[in-house]
Amino acid sequence: MLREAMPTLSPLAPQSYPDIPPIAGVRFATGSAGIKTKTRADVLLALFDKGTSVAGVFTASKCPGAPVDWCRARLKRGRARALVANSGNANAFTGKAGVETTRRIAALAGAAAQIDASEVFLASTGVIGEPLDAGKFEGLIEKLAAEASPGGFLAAAKAIMTTDTFPKVAYAKALLGGVEVSIAGIAKGSGMIAPDMATMLAFVFTDAPIAAAPLQEMLRRGADTSFNAITVDGDTSTSDTLLLFATGAAAGRGAPKIAAAGDRRLQSFRAALDEVLGDLARQIVKDGEGARKFVKITVEGAVSKRSAKIIARAIANSPLVKTAIAGEDANWGRVVMAVGKAGEPADRDRLAISFGDIRVAYKGARDPSYDEVQVAALMHRPEIDIRVDLGLGKGRATIFTCDLTKEYVAINGDYRS
Amino acid sequence: MLREAMPTLSPLAPQSYPDIPPIAGVRFATGSAGIKTKTRADVLLALFDKGTSVAGVFTASKCPGAPVDWCRARLKRGRARALVANSGNANAFTGKAGVETTRRIAALAGAAAQIDASEVFLASTGVIGEPLDAGKFEGLIEKLAAEASPGGFLAAAKAIMTTDTFPKVAYAKALLGGVEVSIAGIAKGSGMIAPDMATMLAFVFTDAPIAAAPLQEMLRRGADTSFNAITVDGDTSTSDTLLLFATGAAAGRGAPKIAAAGDRRLQSFRAALDEVLGDLARQIVKDGEGARKFVKITVEGAVSKRSAKIIARAIANSPLVKTAIAGEDANWGRVVMAVGKAGEPADRDRLAISFGDIRVAYKGARDPSYDEVQVAALMHRPEIDIRVDLGLGKGRATIFTCDLTKEYVAINGDYRS
Repeated sequence: MLREAMPTLSPLAPQSYPDIPPIAGVRFATGSAGIKTKTRADVLLALFDKGTSVAGVFTASKCPGAPVDWCRARLKRGRARALVANSGNANAFTGKAGVETTRRIAALAGAAAQIDASEVFLASTGVIGEPLDAGKFEGLIEKLAAEASPGGFLAAAKAIMTTDTFPKVAYAKALLGGVEVSIAGIAKGSGMIAPDMATMLAFVFTDAPIAAAPLQEMLRRGADTSFNAITVDGDTSTSDTLLLFATGAAAGRGAPKIAAAGDRRLQSFRAALDEVLGDLARQIVKDGEGARKFVKITVEGAVSKRSAKIIARAIANSPLVKTAIAGEDANWGRVVMAVGKAGEPADRDRLAISFGDIRVAYKGARDPSYDEVQVAALMHRPEIDIRVDLGLGKGRATIFTCDLTKEYVAINGDYRS
Repeated sequence: MLREAMPTLSPLAPQSYPDIPPIAGVRFATGSAGIKTKTRADVLLALFDKGTSVAGVFTASKCPGAPVDWCRARLKRGRARALVANSGNANAFTGKAGVETTRRIAALAGAAAQIDASEVFLASTGVIGEPLDAGKFEGLIEKLAAEASPGGFLAAAKAIMTTDTFPKVAYAKALLGGVEVSIAGIAKGSGMIAPDMATMLAFVFTDAPIAAAPLQEMLRRGADTSFNAITVDGDTSTSDTLLLFATGAAAGRGAPKIAAAGDRRLQSFRAALDEVLGDLARQIVKDGEGARKFVKITVEGAVSKRSAKIIARAIANSPLVKTAIAGEDANWGRVVMAVGKAGEPADRDRLAISFGDIRVAYKGARDPSYDEVQVAALMHRPEIDIRVDLGLGKGRATIFTCDLTKEYVAINGDYRS
């Protein structure tokens, strides 16, 4: 017998949600296809006005789900008219039947919205290896296409939740050629659909008139310091999908059309996009399975940025570091261990480690001046900053993660009674 | 307040221990230096007859403990007369004071046994970042040198235990030029000394007359398929040390002296050494923190042996795979995920996955013929075999690991009250 994991609200959940106005050119509708249960919304349909450009970043998995393959192939043309996302079934490792399912869902959306099926983007999250029945989308997609209306980001975010304990939305404004444009995003994080794995989906929408090529460049860069800078358990889903849709509606209010990534007018937009991506990514960590602590790990003084990121990731993914944080212990010995195992250049005798503002290790040994009582007080906080200075060069990187608790093991191991 | 972890005996512990006869040329003594508590043995002294050669393999950490640096430097001459191992303090990340401590302990052993201090090998395991007081070894080392006697492998294994739940010993015989020689080993595994990390120490002893160079070659190769083929949590200690001592005493019974690794007379010895190393390594996994299941992961059909090992390790270190095994679920979707994230060549549509003898996935989809009831029965066993066939080439590798349980998190996170 399968038993549903019943997660309680993450203690790191936001206190309130921003009130996000509609993005011109974007309409949403949500409904239930009964993929997992009949009682909750499991399908999100987003419709975009003509002229919408799209960019995407996907899982690095060598075994991606069928919708990931679908999106990658459709991305080349850079145009989007719809997004269909479902929870409850990832349509991954489903062979030829899975490929056929993507084709059928896109065709249903194309017919319902009277658009080209090749401009329909797809994302699925949930159980893998189970065939996803495209028949469940019949009728529903038509209904959603008829109902779709502007705004409703919180409802859209809820429709893609699996065992996320809170919906994730983010919003920022930017100036493009002196005209205000908006960026709004939704994400689902490392929730679980028993009996399966964590999947990250994020969809970002803007009314800025930006062509697909510069959009792709900005999204790829932005992902590096947001979604590619977080980790819950080091595992990579088959279905991770980040899509950015730009309707261009702000051109009607005088925003200039941007064709190249090097355009200087993109400065404000780029910053706002990074803010939205970073905000969503951090929310995913804060809703990491069993998370009780939000941990920021900064490595500096590495021989390169790449090296700093590898070391920061080794610390962030170390079960011994993560369990120590769960136990509220500033166990810098485990940080030394993680630096050492990363395989990147490091000199034990130049290493300095700080928790918050307190330096605990310096020049290859314990910092004799640090106050254990102060460090202990710091470890009780919900947000922990760990800083490692390798003293070798100028490489710097930050990774966000959470602690490893018994709840993580329970959520991922106790799903059968 | 620190609270000691109180591990209960691993359910995977051996039913009985082999009765290991003394190795000629090796004497042991154990005692308490009061490093952690005054009530238990925390120091092992091994003395070797003149003419003993030595080989060693150490942690790949870029931040190794001072005893690791000491051994590496002394290994070049290939000769050993003593080993001093302690638990309770790893003498790692202890700066210049730690280097001085290694020098002083070796000098104490040299004086006590009237041997050259440069032929004393050292290994420490326990808390890191705490200075290790060499003064605690004064008097004790002299006493142990006077008491040292042949045999006593189980007592020696107990002296290096930290929170291991059982002592680890292994024994095998081989023929060298028609003469019987013996190999005996002891190891300590991924126990914890609150508040610190897992450390692996293993010491192997033989009476075979084998020079340092071939000994080193055999040990390095043997470590690849034993200690380098196990993982509990993917974390690498600063102190991992594997030493092999060959007294040569069997030459007195007619065993030929072996000077080169290519010598064909080594065939039987090599096999017996691999048996001892593999046995000890598997015992370490069976005593992994919180382990309830012993898991063998075999990857075949990879493009190379190296690629197969990277993929096997990605599966073995995946928290999602490990928690599923703890939950007794044959969650092959998570195995697909881990194959995909390894970054090595893999073709989703050629992938086959078996649990035990039951193939659950084939050609990129669920194997329609598999019986869930049979697989479920198999998952209740204490030993789980997972086999992944990539269908690409001839690369093959096996990694041994354990499941990830709430006890792991408790041992590594709950050590403070």
